[in-house]
Amino acid sequence: MARVAFVGLGVMGYPMAGHLVGAGHEVTVWNRSRPRADEWLVEHPGGRVAASPRDAAAAGDLVLMCVGDDASVLSVLSAPDGVLDGAAPGSVVVDHTTVSADTARRAGAACAAAGVGFLDAPVSGGQAGAVNGTLTVMVGGESADFARVDDVVAAYGAKRRLLGPVGAGQLAKMVNQICIAGVVQGLAEGVAFALRTGQDVDAVFDTIGAGAAGSWQMANRHATMAADSFEFGFAVEHMRKDLGNTLAEARAAGAALPLTALVDQFYAEVWQAGGRRWDTSSLITRLPRTRPEDS
Amino acid sequence: MARVAFVGLGVMGYPMAGHLVGAGHEVTVWNRSRPRADEWLVEHPGGRVAASPRDAAAAGDLVLMCVGDDASVLSVLSAPDGVLDGAAPGSVVVDHTTVSADTARRAGAACAAAGVGFLDAPVSGGQAGAVNGTLTVMVGGESADFARVDDVVAAYGAKRRLLGPVGAGQLAKMVNQICIAGVVQGLAEGVAFALRTGQDVDAVFDTIGAGAAGSWQMANRHATMAADSFEFGFAVEHMRKDLGNTLAEARAAGAALPLTALVDQFYAEVWQAGGRRWDTSSLITRLPRTRPEDS
Repeated sequence: MARVAFVGLGVMGYPMAGHLVGAGHEVTVWNRSRPRADEWLVEHPGGRVAASPRDAAAAGDLVLMCVGDDASVLSVLSAPDGVLDGAAPGSVVVDHTTVSADTARRAGAACAAAGVGFLDAPVSGGQAGAVNGTLTVMVGGESADFARVDDVVAAYGAKRRLLGPVGAGQLAKMVNQICIAGVVQGLAEGVAFALRTGQDVDAVFDTIGAGAAGSWQMANRHATMAADSFEFGFAVEHMRKDLGNTLAEARAAGAALPLTALVDQFYAEVWQAGGRRWDTSSLITRLPRTRPEDS
Repeated sequence: MARVAFVGLGVMGYPMAGHLVGAGHEVTVWNRSRPRADEWLVEHPGGRVAASPRDAAAAGDLVLMCVGDDASVLSVLSAPDGVLDGAAPGSVVVDHTTVSADTARRAGAACAAAGVGFLDAPVSGGQAGAVNGTLTVMVGGESADFARVDDVVAAYGAKRRLLGPVGAGQLAKMVNQICIAGVVQGLAEGVAFALRTGQDVDAVFDTIGAGAAGSWQMANRHATMAADSFEFGFAVEHMRKDLGNTLAEARAAGAALPLTALVDQFYAEVWQAGGRRWDTSSLITRLPRTRPEDS
């Protein structure tokens, strides 16, 4: 069993840190909002709460992080009383936040300067994956560091894979979000077209779901899209953050993402229409989808 | 066992008609190009070749069709020596061609005027599905007609579903193509971005394939896309025909298909660049996908 620090008890980090306790690790948590950390401790009496990222890091041989955005990652690491003020040389930091590859490399460089290993390790699987411990973890960094943390991360990561040097995890997550942008907008148009032309949506998607048009999104989102139900899942504001980083990375690399760029703009429209916290499947709300004779 | 006519021995119809012989039906075929029909007969000595669509229809209680496009469907049915010159009142025509819903309704009306039942029944699953007898069949028409043909169509249609009145099969196939347009373009951008940023493509897609970005296209096409391999599958020229009908139907219904319309334009570019017969996954050829340092 390992001595583990977990920094950031958001909708993802809260259950992830809980799984570490469940796996028998000695877990010290820190959260920007202390009441949430105290709540976590009540639910996980085997754990401990630290007063700062520094104190949390000092209590662990591994530091796992899941915070909000690029600026938070760098500040939790390097600000006074940050992780790198407490982490012992030879320890390893694993950052589960979805950020830019550049932020991952900057975080990695800051860790390296302190003699600390660093892995960028964004996850997919959403809140449900965090709660159920079935996340997929896309990892960038050194294989020796990966080998040290893999068993621990397995407490919530059903699938973990080292994909290349620091930044490779973030680049893979970007591929994931690019593919989701296409499949969700295509599905939204398919559902909206089916509604507008008076089709039996469930029957149609049940029929085509196993074929070449099939996808996780089709299996899991066609019915909620058709029902205008979006109060769950991965929020539009987070998708816009991820697509912003992805489009910037593509610009720097000279890659073209015409559909992804367009869908990012569509999400801006959904946000403006009140959808900031809606699931990504809310792209359908932009499209005509009632029958003309019903409106 | 049934007396069945099969009209149209293209890459889909040829193996479909063969499965009918294999299932023990009395099969009479007609094909615009006679040598191809004779070749089919050599391979399926239990069958027969007719001299015209009329003669084929006269030899069957059911007439199954799979021809090239909207104009061919209407002319094979209604031109002199066409199917409706030979089909007995009370027989049923099943059209497997992917056409507009309007063409399906016109074909249905022509059949009805002759006292003949009609089902529009486009398929998905491609040439491999036709050869293996694992097609999905999306059907529109009367349930009594569907009940009469279902056992026969099962010879090559692993999944068959009546989805509504005449035209409903075509509308469902349009939903299928809309969803494919989104997922393929998204995947193309994901693969191109991965290549351009130097990622390990197989490792990345193996890692994300089981999650929320996953799709049939991702599982079956990411590697061929990355390898610039497109000499197989569903051709760009056929996809453009289907998207043309889909966009016209959407226009008439007041549905919006912004991504589908854009991808249709992308296919025009792929075609112009020599991709008329390439698989739909050739959308990636429009995108920068070598690393800058490699070019």
